[in-house]
Amino acid sequence: MKPEFSPLFWPVIFKRDHLLVLDETLLPAKTSYIRVTDYRQACRVIKEMKTRAVGQVILVFYTFLLVAHQKKGAKNMMPFLRKVAEGLVATRPTLAFRYLTDMVLGWAWQTPEAFEKDIEKFLALLRQKRIGQAQAASRLLKDKDTVLTHCNVSGLMPLIASFARGAGKRIDFLVTETRPYLQGARLSAWELTRQGFKVTVIADNTVAQVMHEGKVNKVIVGADHLAQNGDIANKIGTYQIALLARQFKIPFYVLCPPASQVSSGKDIPIEIRPQEELLVFKGERLAPKEAVGYYPAFDITPAQLITKHIHLEVSR
Amino acid sequence: MKPEFSPLFWPVIFKRDHLLVLDETLLPAKTSYIRVTDYRQACRVIKEMKTRAVGQVILVFYTFLLVAHQKKGAKNMMPFLRKVAEGLVATRPTLAFRYLTDMVLGWAWQTPEAFEKDIEKFLALLRQKRIGQAQAASRLLKDKDTVLTHCNVSGLMPLIASFARGAGKRIDFLVTETRPYLQGARLSAWELTRQGFKVTVIADNTVAQVMHEGKVNKVIVGADHLAQNGDIANKIGTYQIALLARQFKIPFYVLCPPASQVSSGKDIPIEIRPQEELLVFKGERLAPKEAVGYYPAFDITPAQLITKHIHLEVSR
Repeated sequence: MKPEFSPLFWPVIFKRDHLLVLDETLLPAKTSYIRVTDYRQACRVIKEMKTRAVGQVILVFYTFLLVAHQKKGAKNMMPFLRKVAEGLVATRPTLAFRYLTDMVLGWAWQTPEAFEKDIEKFLALLRQKRIGQAQAASRLLKDKDTVLTHCNVSGLMPLIASFARGAGKRIDFLVTETRPYLQGARLSAWELTRQGFKVTVIADNTVAQVMHEGKVNKVIVGADHLAQNGDIANKIGTYQIALLARQFKIPFYVLCPPASQVSSGKDIPIEIRPQEELLVFKGERLAPKEAVGYYPAFDITPAQLITKHIHLEVSR
Repeated sequence: MKPEFSPLFWPVIFKRDHLLVLDETLLPAKTSYIRVTDYRQACRVIKEMKTRAVGQVILVFYTFLLVAHQKKGAKNMMPFLRKVAEGLVATRPTLAFRYLTDMVLGWAWQTPEAFEKDIEKFLALLRQKRIGQAQAASRLLKDKDTVLTHCNVSGLMPLIASFARGAGKRIDFLVTETRPYLQGARLSAWELTRQGFKVTVIADNTVAQVMHEGKVNKVIVGADHLAQNGDIANKIGTYQIALLARQFKIPFYVLCPPASQVSSGKDIPIEIRPQEELLVFKGERLAPKEAVGYYPAFDITPAQLITKHIHLEVSR
């Protein structure tokens, strides 16, 4: 079966002298790509969450590839690459960017051609392994399961559902809207419905109720960071869904990135985003100006709440 | 100490030939009252959630008072009052309106003057008992407590905090925004900050995280319906907060209305609101049109998750 891919599965396109990055903040109303011509623009796109999750990872590698192209002929590319790495690592503290940039810098001793080849090989492997990850997840599902998901896992969820469909299993979805960026309502609901899957959107406060009503058979979420001990960092709200899933004895599966060197979730710093992202919506303030907002972008789900980690191994 | 009252504490004003109802949907941007001149308008105001919680209860009584005034001189008011009762009971299934309208109809055998007097006496008692309820709740708090609340309890929360302040205790608040109507961000944050209390707004998905961080000492919520066995119906999201509070061993207090005749939470019907209220915000659709929304307006919190019921007894 040839699966259909969500635009979110690979949301960055490499065009040699520039990159195109899918602007996820405009979805589902508009499918629009941002042109990126240098690493500073790439950092801004990440910081402003125009792309997230695997989009950020792909963008990290493509940004190095872009700079390598632009600096072709330079005596020593290393100073440029280090600057790119520092800029990228500084964008979002919870993500394991250092692990990625260190990997790329480790390939930079070679000829420019070999360096570029290594990046391309890595991305091809990443693509292939992500497809395998979706296949593995689909095998955990049964016909007529309803999967609850939170936020967005960059095209993996429709891929999982497609593989299940290919195996004769019908899967429906419950999607939390995922405040404040609404990745659930905007991205997951969009990529799943456009491939014909049934999606019911709920507010983030309705998770216990749908579990209590027996509407959820499995929870599947992604992870932005996997620690050595199996703890994960993922979109704020994941932790409480995991706690509720345990209370209702519902399996809780996590689609993981490769593990970082961090030993446990306690050591993953939590990024605190600007309060305006929570308190202002479409230019309008939702709360009185005297109120303060608290918006940690991620939370930590300890390994013992995770029924099964669905790993992504991209070591070569 | 003379406490300061939130406009939400008594959001309906009786003007003999009409009623004024605070339009809670426009807060905090605008403090505006809706003019109500007959019971059909009153029903519409309740159905459209222009007023909620105690505002609905007060509106029920004032609507009978209004009709009694308008029908003064009629031979038999009973048919009019029964029609009013039926209209009000049909507005929102989860609320124990029947209990209230039966009470009023039970007073209607008297002279019109005595009937009106009974309604007024009941409302005066309700007012006084609510103040006592806030006082009782304030005694459960300690200096420097941070109280997490959800949705809005119609002016009781600032009253509780005022009583605590009068007793030399400083209380801060964490308020869930409470999607989709945002009663937490719009109403609770507004009425608390305007009386000088510190309010931090969080998304509904951030409850476990603030509990995990040790930021919450107590949870206090209201209830729209109290069953005989102590189960409550309250704004969707209350149930999962109660489950999380138990996991984190945080006291969970409920400001209750008088109990209805319903024996347990299982027998309280849950109102399902139109999906557009969840999926459309300020005229803009948040999710693709192929997605469905599921918006139960309430959930049931079983009595055993409630550390203490703070009762309101208005039997005379």
